[in-house]
Amino acid sequence: MQAPGRSASERAPHRLEALLNARSVAVIGASADPARISGRPIAYMRARGYGGAIYPVNPGRTEVQGLRCYPSVAAIGRPVDLAIIGTAAAHVEGAVREGIAAGVKAFVVFSSGFAELDEAGRALQARLTELARQHDVAIVGPNCLGVANSRCGLLATFTTALESHALQPGGFSFVSQSGALGAYWMDIILRSGIGFSQWITTGNECDVDAAEAIDFLVSDPDTRVIGLYIEDIRRIGAFRAALERAARAGKPVIAIKAGSSSAGAAAAASHTGALAGDDALYDVCLHQHGALRVRSLTEMMDAARLLLHDAAPRGPRLAVMTVSGGAGVLIADACEPLGLELPRLRPEVTQALVPVLPSFVHPGNPLDITGNVLQDTPMISRAMQCLAADRETHGIVLFIGMMHSIADAFVQALSQARAQVHCPIAVIWVGAMESSIQALEAAGIPVFLDIPQAVQAMARCLQMQRDRARIVQRAEAPAAPVAADNGQSLPTLSEWDGKQLLAGQKSVHIPKGWLLQAGGPRPAAGLPYPVVAKLQSPQLLHKSDAGGVLLRIQDDRALQEAVERLYQVGAGLGIPIQGVLAEQMLPFDHELLLGLRRDPRFGPVLTLARGGVEAELDPDVASLLLPATVEDIAQMLGRLRCFKLLQGFRGRPGVDVAALARSIAGLCGWFMEQPLRELEINPLAVKGDQAWALDALVTPLAPG
Amino acid sequence: MQAPGRSASERAPHRLEALLNARSVAVIGASADPARISGRPIAYMRARGYGGAIYPVNPGRTEVQGLRCYPSVAAIGRPVDLAIIGTAAAHVEGAVREGIAAGVKAFVVFSSGFAELDEAGRALQARLTELARQHDVAIVGPNCLGVANSRCGLLATFTTALESHALQPGGFSFVSQSGALGAYWMDIILRSGIGFSQWITTGNECDVDAAEAIDFLVSDPDTRVIGLYIEDIRRIGAFRAALERAARAGKPVIAIKAGSSSAGAAAAASHTGALAGDDALYDVCLHQHGALRVRSLTEMMDAARLLLHDAAPRGPRLAVMTVSGGAGVLIADACEPLGLELPRLRPEVTQALVPVLPSFVHPGNPLDITGNVLQDTPMISRAMQCLAADRETHGIVLFIGMMHSIADAFVQALSQARAQVHCPIAVIWVGAMESSIQALEAAGIPVFLDIPQAVQAMARCLQMQRDRARIVQRAEAPAAPVAADNGQSLPTLSEWDGKQLLAGQKSVHIPKGWLLQAGGPRPAAGLPYPVVAKLQSPQLLHKSDAGGVLLRIQDDRALQEAVERLYQVGAGLGIPIQGVLAEQMLPFDHELLLGLRRDPRFGPVLTLARGGVEAELDPDVASLLLPATVEDIAQMLGRLRCFKLLQGFRGRPGVDVAALARSIAGLCGWFMEQPLRELEINPLAVKGDQAWALDALVTPLAPG
Repeated sequence: MQAPGRSASERAPHRLEALLNARSVAVIGASADPARISGRPIAYMRARGYGGAIYPVNPGRTEVQGLRCYPSVAAIGRPVDLAIIGTAAAHVEGAVREGIAAGVKAFVVFSSGFAELDEAGRALQARLTELARQHDVAIVGPNCLGVANSRCGLLATFTTALESHALQPGGFSFVSQSGALGAYWMDIILRSGIGFSQWITTGNECDVDAAEAIDFLVSDPDTRVIGLYIEDIRRIGAFRAALERAARAGKPVIAIKAGSSSAGAAAAASHTGALAGDDALYDVCLHQHGALRVRSLTEMMDAARLLLHDAAPRGPRLAVMTVSGGAGVLIADACEPLGLELPRLRPEVTQALVPVLPSFVHPGNPLDITGNVLQDTPMISRAMQCLAADRETHGIVLFIGMMHSIADAFVQALSQARAQVHCPIAVIWVGAMESSIQALEAAGIPVFLDIPQAVQAMARCLQMQRDRARIVQRAEAPAAPVAADNGQSLPTLSEWDGKQLLAGQKSVHIPKGWLLQAGGPRPAAGLPYPVVAKLQSPQLLHKSDAGGVLLRIQDDRALQEAVERLYQVGAGLGIPIQGVLAEQMLPFDHELLLGLRRDPRFGPVLTLARGGVEAELDPDVASLLLPATVEDIAQMLGRLRCFKLLQGFRGRPGVDVAALARSIAGLCGWFMEQPLRELEINPLAVKGDQAWALDALVTPLAPG
Repeated sequence: MQAPGRSASERAPHRLEALLNARSVAVIGASADPARISGRPIAYMRARGYGGAIYPVNPGRTEVQGLRCYPSVAAIGRPVDLAIIGTAAAHVEGAVREGIAAGVKAFVVFSSGFAELDEAGRALQARLTELARQHDVAIVGPNCLGVANSRCGLLATFTTALESHALQPGGFSFVSQSGALGAYWMDIILRSGIGFSQWITTGNECDVDAAEAIDFLVSDPDTRVIGLYIEDIRRIGAFRAALERAARAGKPVIAIKAGSSSAGAAAAASHTGALAGDDALYDVCLHQHGALRVRSLTEMMDAARLLLHDAAPRGPRLAVMTVSGGAGVLIADACEPLGLELPRLRPEVTQALVPVLPSFVHPGNPLDITGNVLQDTPMISRAMQCLAADRETHGIVLFIGMMHSIADAFVQALSQARAQVHCPIAVIWVGAMESSIQALEAAGIPVFLDIPQAVQAMARCLQMQRDRARIVQRAEAPAAPVAADNGQSLPTLSEWDGKQLLAGQKSVHIPKGWLLQAGGPRPAAGLPYPVVAKLQSPQLLHKSDAGGVLLRIQDDRALQEAVERLYQVGAGLGIPIQGVLAEQMLPFDHELLLGLRRDPRFGPVLTLARGGVEAELDPDVASLLLPATVEDIAQMLGRLRCFKLLQGFRGRPGVDVAALARSIAGLCGWFMEQPLRELEINPLAVKGDQAWALDALVTPLAPG
């Protein structure tokens, strides 16, 4: 085990240094029973060779598990970095206060009975939060499984996952808002030999939260890949900043976010005491900052093993070797829908392969090396070198089936290939024995047990790599002034009033319009006919459905009739009438729905969707958290299925996508400064490089 | 081991009885070396206790592996059901002839060097086919891994998958066109303890093919689930009939079809010597006859284990029990997009659960039974009984994580639950030990290692069950007269000529039309203006793109101008001009593309798609192999994404779907009788209960 605190000198100390690189640990209420919650951390750390000092604290004992036991933290008389507290909830606050008084810098609180239980627990937890703030100490939990650092053997946890496996250091770290999922992760990591660096379960997050934990891992030199299980993120800004830092530092984040379903969201709300968030926006948030969202620990491990071994393909072009023609076909089948390619071999590669392969094998991709490999396993490495000689081979996949009798020779041949071939290598081995898998993983080659999961993991890692490249290249989003949001809104304005407000910006055009009254003065001469007439009332937001819109009015007389007819509609509906908006009708080529709103959790969000009935039939929508750059918005437009239409499909007119992205970006900047809850432009009419708000619903924030 | 031939008396003997229930086996060229291709079957059968007689045949030996060896099959002097041949390709034909002369009824030919190699091999293989036909014997292979029957210990195979595991009888059977995939399947089946009934690798299929093998398995009383790996089916009619029989017999078929990708199809063609089929139609074919298509052996095993244990949910409503709240959320998340539900518990169930659960647990779905279950495993069975008391609970899912220390108690509690609870039960156990999995599977409870694969398997089994119910309920498709197809086509007709042919049926209307010539006589008075004018030439199939269509012509003069203009267009294109079709323009509400064609492999196929530009942007298409019933076609319409539009979306007019299905069915019946290669109606305009062919391309078959 390394001595704890090793890395502290290499960078500005992070607030969680004292926690995860603690050089000394006090265990409050230490138990002599190594199976009890306050006995386990001591037993685990002693068995796994923790390099720091362990101080059991228990006034009723002088010795615990062979260590001197102290009546209080104060009595230890030496510096204590971390205190572990597993006592009843009622005693936690006192223990923390005592620790703070004795100079303890960090706490891990296992105890439950806080915000997840009842109102009293919530109040108790709030006092812990207050203590952390006041005294600048880090508190993990309460109601958590604790933390672990595999490098220094710090095991401030009582998870049973540590019962039966040796610690193994590795480049993978995990942050979990669920203790159970954290334990499962640890169990898989230790059983499979992947190993880990840091492991942090955050529980009720009275102080240390997932965002801060991720931020710490970005700075942890031993962490190369970050795993995440989240249910609810309260400090979204800090979370986004931590993800962004991870992306820019080249540390992939693989996240499970629970609660995508309605039933799941309800269950999450009941079990963590936290409101379930808007899952779609979590999805947007993770993707926007380069994190990969997966559905399960299995999918997380599949991606992580590729990344930890640098075995993820560097691009879409794979060279596939198999011992069975059928498997080659299945691999090609799995690749195509996920955007991975099996390109034809270049003539030089084919020529180089001929002397390497048995005479009856025709070089191709997939390359069927046939069962003959049984007689000549070194051929694997030679063939791989031929394939890797093509710089455009982005990864090599070897498929093996069974071959139990020569598994050791295979492992040896592959380990050799790994050392000699400068190209990512992944193995799919149907029926692989556990020992072969572990030997190959130890040699730096990830092994998958079947084709679809391997190909899916490769495609996901490639996508994540592209997302990260995009993030690294893009400018940081500008720090824009943002109107304050007190959570209160005013009623939605009529279209007329909304458009008056919207006229304050110049990025998106407003059609010329006149507010007319029944029996009121006629509009100025020379209206740009044809016009549309729309009944205006703050109580009529969906005008078309109620018959409140009349199209293609060609002259003054028809307009006057329309005004009167719309007043009758309004009277029939029994709503207050502001007037009738007569507005020029503009020709356009495409219509989008543009939504801007302040989400209570995520702040300003831009949503773009295809407009019209098509969109309702089969929604085609993308969202982006703000602030965002013009480039972000252009990429977002590219994610809409209807993007092909915007580019000009089958000879139909397209739009100037760059200009459209600039218009939308300008509107976003304006929205963020305005005291508005929501702005919906539907349709946003686009022609060439111009965008027009044909209709608009504006909902202001309440002042103050 | 059972004695072979047991089931022969219970039903009309199948042609493959002599093969798979052979009571005596001759091994031609029998080897004394149990590791050689002609030594392995003998070694395997002796070690696994084959109940029949084994006769090694080798003129150079008097004893092989402790058995008396005969110089020839004729010298055996007793009836021989099956002969195994693994000699060089050149000697195979002679061995088969000798066997036939000695009364052998079935042959398994391992030897390669036939159609997969070269033209000479193809000729050699054709002679085997001829021998099988002439003498009514069954020949499996050549170039195959053989067959196996686990019940009687018949192991006519040299697969290494049998090297290290004991045989285990089970309800799963497998048919594979790839020897390698067959071996991997066998390896998984034996290692996991699932067991099997029959195993048939068909190789080059000179005689016995996958279709016949499936047909045999439908009759095999020990087979409950049929697995399939296919690359290319030549006798599609027999294949469809076998799938249909399986569906009606309630034997689920789970199929891997290789070659969905372009690269995969190319690889398949090179490695099996068979033309890769049209993958989309295979997909249609499998689904139409109730088979489940999966992508991998893993997915096949996941579905099969649910089916073999009767653990697939009987409907969409699941009750979920977990030891962790987070896992419950993840299960709900996985269920929702796949159409599985976690309904709220009924009050009676909630009440019944209260005394069963720990006091701090609130009954819900998912039901978090918490880690407390460690202290009270019998609670599992009691809680499951409460959940199963609701008849509308279609399946129970229990999630466990780790729990290694009490794994045995869990297994015991679950085995008890299985016996007491009358509801399908599946377990998801993250971190399960191999021994726990095997014990639970032996108790009839399938175990999954993570959530997504379990939920996906459940959803797939449910879908298959619905498809089977649909098949069992539907009438057999009528045996319709079908025009002969010699594989040759005539050129596609002009729209005018095509519509003259199409007028021979009355299911779909043809708009009134007049063929006009430039300078020719005017059409009869009283044309139903507005009309559309369309240039007619057998060399101009896509008229609109070439400017050959003029819409909304309002009177005689405009029509005459249009005719002249279209003649100029034709002259500019330099194509022969048949005339200009003036056709009434009809109002319609919806447009579809309807395609009917004779596929060289699958025969007549109906394709329906959404019409218009939308369809090209994001194709919305469904196909059906003919003959098909009106009900089949109505269901097919229901699978289109635009079906919502056809039903009348957001107040827009819908169509009479039943009438539309009847019209299309009528057209299909007509098409099958006509000597036509292809008929494309685009658009098929639909309004109310009427359908109109606004444009039509007809390609006749060549006569003779």
